[in-house]
Amino acid sequence: MSTDFGDLLETFDNPYAGRNYTIEHTCPEFTSVCPKTGQPDFGTLVFTYVPNELCIELKSLKMYLQRYRNEGIFYEHITNRIMDDFVNAVKPRWANLESRWTPRGGLSSVIVVEYPDSEDE
Amino acid sequence: MSTDFGDLLETFDNPYAGRNYTIEHTCPEFTSVCPKTGQPDFGTLVFTYVPNELCIELKSLKMYLQRYRNEGIFYEHITNRIMDDFVNAVKPRWANLESRWTPRGGLSSVIVVEYPDSEDE
Amino acid sequence: MSTDFGDLLETFDNPYAGRNYTIEHTCPEFTSVCPKTGQPDFGTLVFTYVPNELCIELKSLKMYLQRYRNEGIFYEHITNRIMDDFVNAVKPRWANLESRWTPRGGLSSVIVVEYPDSEDE
Amino acid sequence: MSTDFGDLLETFDNPYAGRNYTIEHTCPEFTSVCPKTGQPDFGTLVFTYVPNELCIELKSLKMYLQRYRNEGIFYEHITNRIMDDFVNAVKPRWANLESRWTPRGGLSSVIVVEYPDSEDE
Amino acid sequence: MSTDFGDLLETFDNPYAGRNYTIEHTCPEFTSVCPKTGQPDFGTLVFTYVPNELCIELKSLKMYLQRYRNEGIFYEHITNRIMDDFVNAVKPRWANLESRWTPRGGLSSVIVVEYPDSEDE
Amino acid sequence: MSTDFGDLLETFDNPYAGRNYTIEHTCPEFTSVCPKTGQPDFGTLVFTYVPNELCIELKSLKMYLQRYRNEGIFYEHITNRIMDDFVNAVKPRWANLESRWTPRGGLSSVIVVEYPDSEDE
Amino acid sequence: MSTDFGDLLETFDNPYAGRNYTIEHTCPEFTSVCPKTGQPDFGTLVFTYVPNELCIELKSLKMYLQRYRNEGIFYEHITNRIMDDFVNAVKPRWANLESRWTPRGGLSSVIVVEYPDSEDE
Amino acid sequence: MSTDFGDLLETFDNPYAGRNYTIEHTCPEFTSVCPKTGQPDFGTLVFTYVPNELCIELKSLKMYLQRYRNEGIFYEHITNRIMDDFVNAVKPRWANLESRWTPRGGLSSVIVVEYPDSEDE
Amino acid sequence: MSTDFGDLLETFDNPYAGRNYTIEHTCPEFTSVCPKTGQPDFGTLVFTYVPNELCIELKSLKMYLQRYRNEGIFYEHITNRIMDDFVNAVKPRWANLESRWTPRGGLSSVIVVEYPDSEDE
Amino acid sequence: MSTDFGDLLETFDNPYAGRNYTIEHTCPEFTSVCPKTGQPDFGTLVFTYVPNELCIELKSLKMYLQRYRNEGIFYEHITNRIMDDFVNAVKPRWANLESRWTPRGGLSSVIVVEYPDSEDE
Repeated sequence: MSTDFGDLLETFDNPYAGRNYTIEHTCPEFTSVCPKTGQPDFGTLVFTYVPNELCIELKSLKMYLQRYRNEGIFYEHITNRIMDDFVNAVKPRWANLESRWTPRGGLSSVIVVEYPDSEDE
Repeated sequence: MSTDFGDLLETFDNPYAGRNYTIEHTCPEFTSVCPKTGQPDFGTLVFTYVPNELCIELKSLKMYLQRYRNEGIFYEHITNRIMDDFVNAVKPRWANLESRWTPRGGLSSVIVVEYPDSEDE
Repeated sequence: MSTDFGDLLETFDNPYAGRNYTIEHTCPEFTSVCPKTGQPDFGTLVFTYVPNELCIELKSLKMYLQRYRNEGIFYEHITNRIMDDFVNAVKPRWANLESRWTPRGGLSSVIVVEYPDSEDE
Repeated sequence: MSTDFGDLLETFDNPYAGRNYTIEHTCPEFTSVCPKTGQPDFGTLVFTYVPNELCIELKSLKMYLQRYRNEGIFYEHITNRIMDDFVNAVKPRWANLESRWTPRGGLSSVIVVEYPDSEDE
Repeated sequence: MSTDFGDLLETFDNPYAGRNYTIEHTCPEFTSVCPKTGQPDFGTLVFTYVPNELCIELKSLKMYLQRYRNEGIFYEHITNRIMDDFVNAVKPRWANLESRWTPRGGLSSVIVVEYPDSEDE
Repeated sequence: MSTDFGDLLETFDNPYAGRNYTIEHTCPEFTSVCPKTGQPDFGTLVFTYVPNELCIELKSLKMYLQRYRNEGIFYEHITNRIMDDFVNAVKPRWANLESRWTPRGGLSSVIVVEYPDSEDE
Repeated sequence: MSTDFGDLLETFDNPYAGRNYTIEHTCPEFTSVCPKTGQPDFGTLVFTYVPNELCIELKSLKMYLQRYRNEGIFYEHITNRIMDDFVNAVKPRWANLESRWTPRGGLSSVIVVEYPDSEDE
Repeated sequence: MSTDFGDLLETFDNPYAGRNYTIEHTCPEFTSVCPKTGQPDFGTLVFTYVPNELCIELKSLKMYLQRYRNEGIFYEHITNRIMDDFVNAVKPRWANLESRWTPRGGLSSVIVVEYPDSEDE
Repeated sequence: MSTDFGDLLETFDNPYAGRNYTIEHTCPEFTSVCPKTGQPDFGTLVFTYVPNELCIELKSLKMYLQRYRNEGIFYEHITNRIMDDFVNAVKPRWANLESRWTPRGGLSSVIVVEYPDSEDE
Repeated sequence: MSTDFGDLLETFDNPYAGRNYTIEHTCPEFTSVCPKTGQPDFGTLVFTYVPNELCIELKSLKMYLQRYRNEGIFYEHITNRIMDDFVNAVKPRWANLESRWTPRGGLSSVIVVEYPDSEDE
């Protein structure tokens, strides 16, 4: 996967910067392509974060996620990459991304990434 | 948004002041207007608080929330502003406001504000 | 509200006194009257406690709760008062009372009281 | 209620006219005002119809329904009136409108109108 | 049970008389008293009807149902009696009343009365 | 199984005899014993009937059903036998008995008997 | 698939032969093998029938169904074949077999066979 | 939309041709593109049919449905078109296609097409 | 209650002794008799434990629980007694027993006992 | 049980090694055989882990689990053995395996194993 979609993400100024509060956005309509089989994957993405100076602009988040529609990428890779793009754009105090995937071969999967990583602390 | 609705909120004396106990009020019929698109937004507000000397009077809370019906205001802004008005009127020991919004563009959102903010401690 | 129902509550000796264990009784059929509007209120009461020397006798608890059927009393008041009567009769190590009320004016409420109060510790 | 919103409804040519098939649109975000109390009402509208030459255009249906936001009108009246506007615009072979309303005073309501009325047959 | 509550029921003119449509009102907060044990009964009443010239006025229905709060009356009797009062006041084309009762002695009950009775036809 | 429990069932005069209406009683706490394995069986019984001159008295129904607690009898047999006893006592216009059984060996079962049998018509 | 399992099915005399009543057995633990991919299939089978002279013996039904554990056979084929074996053994007045299969490649399937076939009538 | 995907659908011989039975396939992972907004649509397709000489081959059905992934086409059009392709390939005795679509602008939709159309009869 | 059932419980050697892992067994089909009213009680028992050298043998646990079928014993007593028998037989590192009882007089109950008791620590 | 299936498990390089994140795979289609009765067991396995250098390859996990199809092995044994094979192949930072089993003799079971065991710490 060659392209970088991260700069599609837009932000606006947090109207209550300086206060700790939590924002959660759920996207039940995510789809990408399995790079091994060429078959489409379908999942739900849940973003939860404590904003710092910036909040994610919802329409840009939607447009960003749609860009994965025809990309071939594995569950583990895609979740971490979207998290990196999100953190890079929003620079939150704390964030969590959970991706839940519909069954393939009888197995369903969930990937969860948290920021900052406890390794970094 | 010019008007200030905060003084619509009325209170009554906490009949068991001095004791820590929790009160939760859920309003599944909140509606305001998106300032960007002019389209109505619909959500559920959940207030949870530990009262100090005062309790919120339910009818005044209902009337206060109805005043947002034709106001144009973003999710992040509205949740924090209602929390400020609530805390200003009730002066609770602790409070939490959760707003859950119906899907827009395939994305649904939840905003959670807690008082006092851990920043303040 | 003039009458005192507390002495309707009966107890029996805890058959395993000296051991910490938890008892929960749920009453989904509680009703009283709103003192402001005269309209009936309907709710569910959940008692959870760790007994000391005594356990609450279930039939007496049922008879006690039925005495509120035609009493005019607010949510916040009733939950604390029932908790006081319960603690006075059973003298538990720990107790919690949660009252959940059906919607009024589009708003539903929950009140939670715990014993002992953290204030007292 | 003075204004007539019916001409807000737009249609497009049924791409499979001549075939009997069924279309259902559900709007869980309808709100109007009770003409008696001035309080907002909240409901879900479900349109089901068999198109003839025309199909309802979804965005115009949304805009039409939003026009009731500040109108004072009773459940029974509103459901029949919206059905009349819908039938007038779309001229379906068959149609059904169901409105489900959130509780008021402990009572929740559902109104169902079918077209053509069996009286007419 | 001596009193007659039926004249508490008020009606208003059906705004779409001459058209067959269906109205359903659900009251999940009904309570009366068992004449045998003196214990309170709790149930949900569902009225479904096709109006003729008249519709039931909701607030009067609520007040009417509250009058059973301290009346001692059996399930089978109460459901038929309320149906008679309803039909007498509203004179519907068709009506159905379903009462669903919470468990007593491990047994829960449902009573359903329809008007007109097929016997009458 | 030697004993006959049928005369435990008591009835009372139908207060609205001459009218067709439906009564349903659900008993989720039925238990008997499998005659083959000696293991207990657990099930839910649902009685639905249109009364004629008589209604079943609920407490006697409960006592009657408890008599099967230590009886060894198969699903198909028990459901038909209880139906025969019920019809014999109540003499309803119409009746239906559904017994739903918890899983045994990974298989769960439902038996449904209707009266009058279509064979008899 | 070479073997014939049908004679594993055992029956017992219907204790209420001559009466129309319905028996339903649900097996949520059926598994066979896809003849194309060699992968296991998992499904739920629901047998519903009106017995004539015979009822199916449950343990023999369980043993019969377990024999498909390592058989390679398609959904459409297996459902019809099991129905044929069942009808051959039990000779019911009426029967229905529904097989519901877990998702494969994002598609889940249900097969329903009824006896007697309307073609035969 | 220019291309014709219909010849992607493959069939196999109905192993029980001559018997009426029902097959249902559910695809909860359908996605296409709205031709008006360019935004992706997400839906669930449910095929139900009584086969004649042929059954649909599941893998080819999956591949066929995936071809709509980047096609711009309206709900009403797509459901009828897929039904035409399905009927053309499988030539069933009877078929039904239901498409259920996730909310857009607060409105969710369902389209149902049956074959043969009652018009044709 | 005179008899002691505890020696009905059998165990087998924990195949992974030395490792902390958790085993949970749920019995939704427990029944005993209320010593006050003589009426049957119905409940669900959930055993959760970390084994030490021994695991409970499931069939013996089933036989042990069935012995309470005709015993008269209160909720609080029975839960503690079964826990004592279980701990005595299995000698677990940690255990928890939760009994959930169906409604009696409108009140449902849950009893929870943990081993070792925090008092003992 | 003689064979060792552990080397069927394949892995791939963790694309974000060095970061703590969580992966969960759920297999609702696990089946083995009870060594005591010879009857099949059915369960759901949930693997949750924090990868180190390696991630489990899903297709190999599926093939590995299918190898237990005709193996006779107890719940407690199988869960620990699969955990050992998984940890041996993937060498995760942390892992948890939960197996949930369908009812046998009215009792359903859950086994939970965590790695590393707290004993080892």
